[in-house]
Amino acid sequence: MVDNIKFFFNPENIAVVGASNNPQKAGYVIVNNLIKMGYPNKIFPVNSKEENILGFKSYPTVYDINDKVEMVVLITPSKEIKRIIEDIENRMKKWNDIKVIVCAAAGFGELKTEEGRERERILVENSRKYGIRVMGPNCIGVIDNYNRVDTTFVETLMPPENKGKGGGISFISQSGALAASILMWGASQPVPLQFNKFISIGNMADVDFIDLLEYLENDDNTRVIGLYIEGYPKAGELIDLMRRIALKKPIVVLKVGRTSRGAAAANSHTGSLAGEDRVYDSVFRQYGIIRVNSIDELMDTLQAFDRLPIPEGNRLFLLSQAGGPGIFCMDTLSQFEFIDFSIIGKKSRERLRELLPPMASFCKPEGYADISASATVQHHTDALEILMDDSEVDGVLMITVVPTFLPKKELAEGLVSTYKRIKKHKNKPLFPVIMAGNWVKDIREIIEENGIPTFETPDRAARVAANMIKYSLFLKKHNAERQV
Amino acid sequence: MVDNIKFFFNPENIAVVGASNNPQKAGYVIVNNLIKMGYPNKIFPVNSKEENILGFKSYPTVYDINDKVEMVVLITPSKEIKRIIEDIENRMKKWNDIKVIVCAAAGFGELKTEEGRERERILVENSRKYGIRVMGPNCIGVIDNYNRVDTTFVETLMPPENKGKGGGISFISQSGALAASILMWGASQPVPLQFNKFISIGNMADVDFIDLLEYLENDDNTRVIGLYIEGYPKAGELIDLMRRIALKKPIVVLKVGRTSRGAAAANSHTGSLAGEDRVYDSVFRQYGIIRVNSIDELMDTLQAFDRLPIPEGNRLFLLSQAGGPGIFCMDTLSQFEFIDFSIIGKKSRERLRELLPPMASFCKPEGYADISASATVQHHTDALEILMDDSEVDGVLMITVVPTFLPKKELAEGLVSTYKRIKKHKNKPLFPVIMAGNWVKDIREIIEENGIPTFETPDRAARVAANMIKYSLFLKKHNAERQV
Repeated sequence: MVDNIKFFFNPENIAVVGASNNPQKAGYVIVNNLIKMGYPNKIFPVNSKEENILGFKSYPTVYDINDKVEMVVLITPSKEIKRIIEDIENRMKKWNDIKVIVCAAAGFGELKTEEGRERERILVENSRKYGIRVMGPNCIGVIDNYNRVDTTFVETLMPPENKGKGGGISFISQSGALAASILMWGASQPVPLQFNKFISIGNMADVDFIDLLEYLENDDNTRVIGLYIEGYPKAGELIDLMRRIALKKPIVVLKVGRTSRGAAAANSHTGSLAGEDRVYDSVFRQYGIIRVNSIDELMDTLQAFDRLPIPEGNRLFLLSQAGGPGIFCMDTLSQFEFIDFSIIGKKSRERLRELLPPMASFCKPEGYADISASATVQHHTDALEILMDDSEVDGVLMITVVPTFLPKKELAEGLVSTYKRIKKHKNKPLFPVIMAGNWVKDIREIIEENGIPTFETPDRAARVAANMIKYSLFLKKHNAERQV
Repeated sequence: MVDNIKFFFNPENIAVVGASNNPQKAGYVIVNNLIKMGYPNKIFPVNSKEENILGFKSYPTVYDINDKVEMVVLITPSKEIKRIIEDIENRMKKWNDIKVIVCAAAGFGELKTEEGRERERILVENSRKYGIRVMGPNCIGVIDNYNRVDTTFVETLMPPENKGKGGGISFISQSGALAASILMWGASQPVPLQFNKFISIGNMADVDFIDLLEYLENDDNTRVIGLYIEGYPKAGELIDLMRRIALKKPIVVLKVGRTSRGAAAANSHTGSLAGEDRVYDSVFRQYGIIRVNSIDELMDTLQAFDRLPIPEGNRLFLLSQAGGPGIFCMDTLSQFEFIDFSIIGKKSRERLRELLPPMASFCKPEGYADISASATVQHHTDALEILMDDSEVDGVLMITVVPTFLPKKELAEGLVSTYKRIKKHKNKPLFPVIMAGNWVKDIREIIEENGIPTFETPDRAARVAANMIKYSLFLKKHNAERQV
């Protein structure tokens, strides 16, 4: 049965039960998202009141589709579940083709009424009889950017040319609202954020964290896993599995219920338990699972793990073109005691002294250089090259507040080509902080389009660098290596 | 001499020494910024090589200007300072009109060379002879949005129609780079951020934190003061003054040098001392000065203090339309032990039960409601009205992840009119979190244009609410009231 999980991400043909011609309905947006995504197989809208939906023939029931259907998306009122399940059962007896159901509809177990629980039972138990796996109910759906599947009813405003590019981040969210806001936020970034797989897990009536993590463990397109967790009944099993996966690829977790009041709120939402959090927290620390504290940190960290190499050690160099932001960043970094600030070699010191403008100051303290507001593009790239080349440096965090008179495109391209040149023979991350809102939007776009994440503020980059170093130390301790 | 400080913000006529016709030069941008700002008095470019600059007659020296000059901006190479000071002295002997100098040029004390220090001495000592106050050197200048002064060479890309609107935030930065990036970042917000006064203080060779704070203390247009501090030699005096001001208006501080390595970096930048930080920190806590930890928190907190009333107590209600983000926010809020979660009255409970959708849950735990994804615009505004009206509630933090099918404009306008209606008779802040990137840009614009700040993530709003409550408790303890 676990095997069927793969069909959530690459089904041959999709039926959308509850499809609609009304753009104000979720049943319209789902079909429209599949079209915009360029889903390569067939789409079968199911709605007995329509002849055609968005250019496709509409069928009265799932049973009537005269072709293979591997995925069924349900976006119908929950009270119709009994009838729909009958259609599905009839279909299975004849065609035996459905592998997965995404139940986007709400009105099931989350109502905490007898009726809601009964509907959920009907959905799951009858599906199980045929080996069909169910996502949800009460979820916003599944996205696979490689296979061009998007069953969500979230309109992200992402330009169509960015749809389906795919990245290495796979994300599982226990909250549909958080999932939707992350999708929409990601689509609004200077370079829209690309997920590999994106899963809103809903009520977990059938498919749960363990099913999906076991699948993502061996998915080569998943370079990093992101999780939003409220609570999970089988905590022990989940932790064992995360522990095994973390030795192969990074897992980044936003877990709520840290405080007793937060846990009480979570309990009234998903019925998860309060005391668990301390257990999770200590286990996360021990097993190299990165726990984050904010949505910004979650997204920043996922992007960095996807796009950057993991540093080989904990020696970081902070290179700043601006005094104030540099000092502020050093303050933030120094709170992470496991970071070791690079003591660069004698040769690097001499080269920096020769090349940098007279106002530059470096190695006061060790691991820090302020190349000053008078730094040219050449000063930026020279300094970056010297530091990245130094064998005493495992990674560079670089800050620039692009002065009005520095050529912006040249700076962006210079940084990219310097980093790429060095990356050919050294496996080191660069964390570029490009401060100044829309003024530097072009620069951030050029750098990000070249596969390097950029950061808006020094503290955000500092937290991400710390998270990557923490994971690097964990891998080292266990003689492990990232496998994707 | 302190009196002359006011001329930085409202000078009659400005001479720009080092003005230029080359758009790549700071001397061009300064003149251009004054024009774009709509500076109402006369602008006199000084450049012996040009006849006209940006449409104005150019003068060979300051001495040659045949009209009143109250402010001189210097953006000339520092090695020319001796000659320029001679021109200024000659002018003062004849006209005695200059009140202030903004020395934007670098190459002075910050070089830490004998030559640099000597130049700084020439600039300041000779100015003092005539009672002229000097800002800088090595600063990016001064902005006054009410009086339409902008001597900076920062291009913010802010649309001209937003220039000069003015707000209630006055900001002093010891770092020019941080100042520039904050200006550019602020201009990039959904509704561009408006400062009242914005001051880059540079080397503080003459005008320093104390001069400016004494001025802002009594400036009625300054509702909140923001500071970026690296270090200051007269810490005792500064703290006494901040203590006095904090009883009248909020002060929000980003102070670096928290860690010994951060302090070392600060020391190599501005020569400030390491050990001081602990003193500052405990004094800030005691005297109601809000210390923030990130640039985001700094800007968010300043905007909230400018636009929102200070809550009358510490009882906060968290109203969320989305489970996950609500729980996450409760987790963040609960870390601030001085927040008391509102236990609303019986009548409010009954009204909420009647009005909200069946899936809503409230007062589990107390001070929290999840109005659920099925909430309509009416549910949003009804719930807000009930809570804001309840005498047991001092402020509301409201989260919405605007679902695809909720009419966005209606929601924004509904929230604004509900809040405004209640604000007429109750003095309570509302902290609206509108999650989902560009998807909700319109909503945020409508709300912000109506004078209510909006937040992108729950944790950012939570920190700001905590900062306002902290200040409210401080005022209460001292029987003090905000005076602007």
